[in-house]
Amino acid sequence: MKTLAAQVITPEDLLKHWQGHRALTRRVIEAFPEKDFFEFSIAGMRPFAKLADELLAIAVPGLKGIVTKETKPFAEDSEKLVFKAQYLEKWDQATAEINEYWQKLSIEDFNENFNLFGQYEFPVIQNILYFIDNEVHHRGQGYVYLRALGIEPPFFWER
Amino acid sequence: MKTLAAQVITPEDLLKHWQGHRALTRRVIEAFPEKDFFEFSIAGMRPFAKLADELLAIAVPGLKGIVTKETKPFAEDSEKLVFKAQYLEKWDQATAEINEYWQKLSIEDFNENFNLFGQYEFPVIQNILYFIDNEVHHRGQGYVYLRALGIEPPFFWER
Repeated sequence: MKTLAAQVITPEDLLKHWQGHRALTRRVIEAFPEKDFFEFSIAGMRPFAKLADELLAIAVPGLKGIVTKETKPFAEDSEKLVFKAQYLEKWDQATAEINEYWQKLSIEDFNENFNLFGQYEFPVIQNILYFIDNEVHHRGQGYVYLRALGIEPPFFWER
Repeated sequence: MKTLAAQVITPEDLLKHWQGHRALTRRVIEAFPEKDFFEFSIAGMRPFAKLADELLAIAVPGLKGIVTKETKPFAEDSEKLVFKAQYLEKWDQATAEINEYWQKLSIEDFNENFNLFGQYEFPVIQNILYFIDNEVHHRGQGYVYLRALGIEPPFFWER
């Protein structure tokens, strides 16, 4: 039997933390005007819809890979979404799927190495923190887009 | 004696995670041309120097408050820094101070409530995750500034 080192956050609280961030990103998607969500960009960076594609391609596929120990390569969905409402629907499906897959993680899993997308060999906890950080990072970009569009973004601390 | 719930990240790894993000933010500061660091802005948002002021006013003062259990109000430094080199120096001092204060945190502390800056009453772990998230969020903003200035930002995954 392994002894666990003293650690500082429970799986439940980490899931809540992640889903809190995802709820905020959902509000950022909602805040974009339909057209700007797909088209607005600064300095040739991706529009927010493209960033949302990336976030959707990481969250459930990444977590599913961790749980099933399958290392499928990273791939954005080939089904092209053309309305914001479709993104919001897919976002909500992902929220539910994350909650389901999360229940299949054991406490030991978090410290096991996993080769995410067959490319990033790190402990699971680091993979999951990366999912969150990457979302916060791109959402920060979305905040600048909204401001540049003259739109007040949601409060950062509202989750 | 309290039983600790099964948890997923050690204090050492969380510190490494935070300092990894801080190292990346330092590279973002370095990437700005001197003048733009203080002046460049999009849509009236704060220039990156002002964001760095906020990050510096949160990291050490916040962690110090947690360790000493003193709830001083949030305040940005009244000493005005006017060169990027001064920011980098202060950043490095903060890096060392964070490492020192961190050693004074016990494993139990992370789940204790603390009224950060006399204003945010949450478990310490949530306060610390907030420090990190807030930095990633504002740094994401900095990435857009750099791109808008025609400068390639550092790789997000380099820590």
